[in-house]
Amino acid sequence: MTSDPSSPAQPLIVLVRPQMGENIGAAARAMLNFGLTGMRIVAPRDGWPNPKATAMAAGAGSVLDSARVFDTVAEATADCSYVVATTARQRGLFLPVHDAEESAQLIRQKQAGGERCAILFGGEKSGLATDDVAHANQILTLPVNPEFSSLNLAQAVLLTAYAWRRAEDASLPFESPYENVPAPREELDGMLSHLNGVLDDAGYFYPEDKRKTLERNVRTLFTHAGFTEAEIRLFRGMIRQLGYWGRREDSTSE
Amino acid sequence: MTSDPSSPAQPLIVLVRPQMGENIGAAARAMLNFGLTGMRIVAPRDGWPNPKATAMAAGAGSVLDSARVFDTVAEATADCSYVVATTARQRGLFLPVHDAEESAQLIRQKQAGGERCAILFGGEKSGLATDDVAHANQILTLPVNPEFSSLNLAQAVLLTAYAWRRAEDASLPFESPYENVPAPREELDGMLSHLNGVLDDAGYFYPEDKRKTLERNVRTLFTHAGFTEAEIRLFRGMIRQLGYWGRREDSTSE
Repeated sequence: MTSDPSSPAQPLIVLVRPQMGENIGAAARAMLNFGLTGMRIVAPRDGWPNPKATAMAAGAGSVLDSARVFDTVAEATADCSYVVATTARQRGLFLPVHDAEESAQLIRQKQAGGERCAILFGGEKSGLATDDVAHANQILTLPVNPEFSSLNLAQAVLLTAYAWRRAEDASLPFESPYENVPAPREELDGMLSHLNGVLDDAGYFYPEDKRKTLERNVRTLFTHAGFTEAEIRLFRGMIRQLGYWGRREDSTSE
Repeated sequence: MTSDPSSPAQPLIVLVRPQMGENIGAAARAMLNFGLTGMRIVAPRDGWPNPKATAMAAGAGSVLDSARVFDTVAEATADCSYVVATTARQRGLFLPVHDAEESAQLIRQKQAGGERCAILFGGEKSGLATDDVAHANQILTLPVNPEFSSLNLAQAVLLTAYAWRRAEDASLPFESPYENVPAPREELDGMLSHLNGVLDDAGYFYPEDKRKTLERNVRTLFTHAGFTEAEIRLFRGMIRQLGYWGRREDSTSE
């Protein structure tokens, strides 16, 4: 991942007339969580720099430090050739509408061709103006609950950055140490023999004419559990100890 | 989508020892944005109810109103059979690790079989304790920037709810009114004839021996543009008006 905010390998995040510094800072944090570093800001209500943004950005202050401020959407996107407008409302504009994942794929394609891409986010009060959206090549909208569709600015940035990151590289920070594969049957059978021996000593298979049924039920139970080899080793440790304990010379009883 | 918070058709969101009411409220908002309504809270630091949570939840107060509070993770998940722990760190536990999308698919499968599912989120300071994670059937982790991986509580809830929603129903709140299909060639050719006629009158094809080349370039230009039928109509309106204007009896000139 590049960290050059002017690199066309990343979409620029353009906040259009944002109001609260806290939300600008939270947006910077959300960007950096998924590796985006290029922020542009159009006409921030409370001027720039904004100490409340810096306080909220926590470890993402570098994104704010390199943010560039413009007066208009036209100026903020002057060097871009593919512009995406995020909005929760249809605008009557003849623009294609895509979700965040499709948009991320399109942005990747444009970037691969050397295009600089920008994603516009409107301010807290009413989002992007339709005149802002008219600067875009496409609309990005999210599959929100139609009965409660208002997303916080930083949350809209977060979901967009997340989709972009996943389109580039969906690898997780760590993987399971665990091959979740049931052990081969010989391991299971070894465990069942061991278990059945201990259960037998404990008087579990009683009366004798139930033995076959009980053994079958025990087998089915552990087949269903699907223990891995490591789990079988762990479980055999329990059986072993129970066996030692049950078979002990009971020297402490009166 | 059901709105019954106890329905197994939705995973429960379980906040474990959350600290700031603001984050509980923001988490409620994030849940409702993607249609989740069942919240459980384990040992909230500042007690419950929490006016700061209510203030931050905005329109999602109903999620907080129906939230249930418990002392321990065991009690909060007592009626659940599939429990997911969200964490950014490997814990040395033999648990499968999945991303949000895979987890959402697994949860859907469990729910389809009638299982109640819960997703655990740790508090702001250090996330889930390893003892909390040991209650889970699987770990959920997100493909965050490894150099800046700390996600706000509400943002982790948002991404998880988003993935769940997309696994259930990825439909967007609106679609493009626009069939983005280039017009058939006869429409393009009609437009080019019209345009060429006006350009000819305007003296564009000059000198005559350049006419063929210029006509070809004009054709290539508009083929590349890929206008739809609606766009061709719009453009022909412009040509028509330019034609009227250029061909007018110039009665106002001296």
